[in-house]
Amino acid sequence: MRKIIYHVASTLDGYIAHKDGTTQGFLEEGEHVSDYLESLKDYDTVIMGRHTYEYGYSYGLQPGQPAYPHMMHYVFSRSLHFESAHEQVKVIDDNQIDALRELKESVGSPIYMCGGGKFASFLLAHKLIDELKIKLSPVLFGAGIKLFEGSEETYRLRELNTIAYKGGVFLLNYEIDYL
Amino acid sequence: MRKIIYHVASTLDGYIAHKDGTTQGFLEEGEHVSDYLESLKDYDTVIMGRHTYEYGYSYGLQPGQPAYPHMMHYVFSRSLHFESAHEQVKVIDDNQIDALRELKESVGSPIYMCGGGKFASFLLAHKLIDELKIKLSPVLFGAGIKLFEGSEETYRLRELNTIAYKGGVFLLNYEIDYL
Repeated sequence: MRKIIYHVASTLDGYIAHKDGTTQGFLEEGEHVSDYLESLKDYDTVIMGRHTYEYGYSYGLQPGQPAYPHMMHYVFSRSLHFESAHEQVKVIDDNQIDALRELKESVGSPIYMCGGGKFASFLLAHKLIDELKIKLSPVLFGAGIKLFEGSEETYRLRELNTIAYKGGVFLLNYEIDYL
Repeated sequence: MRKIIYHVASTLDGYIAHKDGTTQGFLEEGEHVSDYLESLKDYDTVIMGRHTYEYGYSYGLQPGQPAYPHMMHYVFSRSLHFESAHEQVKVIDDNQIDALRELKESVGSPIYMCGGGKFASFLLAHKLIDELKIKLSPVLFGAGIKLFEGSEETYRLRELNTIAYKGGVFLLNYEIDYL
């Protein structure tokens, strides 16, 4: 069974982005960045919510094109439609839980879940996130898009592994202890 | 100059308590607990907001009495009044910033700031927190009282020291890089 890994940068106070989706303030240089880029090679599939996909537009992503050239993309949204889409980009607008379960049962690498906070809460509520890889950055945003946006349940985590980088970034890897 | 240290347990997603102020879910056993209790000896003074003081009532604290027997307490509140108060407990209801600056300039140990999130944001906005000591616990609350409740500014942190405990708790010590 393929694991779904929520792999994302977070502030110390639990934000993955500012309110407008931008991420100024995260440390964007250092070994944690090269390690992260290297770790992307371990994923052949990425899943995300609509806002996260559309945030790519501000970096030049064209609608319907892959954000990560070597990955198959599944964008979970009931409202997103492309005039034409690359064969590596599929919108899942219906039966999303079934689609996620099928994806987990298919053959391939662990599945990269890159955001955002609302999609993360949706997955968490359905026990569909297997691991967290949180790049904890030494910064406070105070407000913004939360790591889990809209969740109100308590979940215990089991630490699997931690890497401490120079500059104060930690890569915290956890399993979720679903009861 | 005495430092004000915001020393508090936080979930991975940035909560210091549930919405009702309770804290079920934090790991309450282990070396991080004995280390924390030992570290309280380093403080002769504690400052806090009203909600944090009053939360002590649920543990048997009597109004006006000290929560930490060896510390001088300053509770910052415009609405809290005691019929009688222990000499180690003072309510600061007016000129709070002046009182905090005087406290920092007085003689004594570093000042323990034990919460809560709103008082933390008030201090942060006035550049009055010198260090964070965050006991990061392997748990998600999803909702609750935030580490900084009501702050909307970005603050960069400088990592000073980190202790990794068995069980997945980290004690993260930062300075705040006020611009």
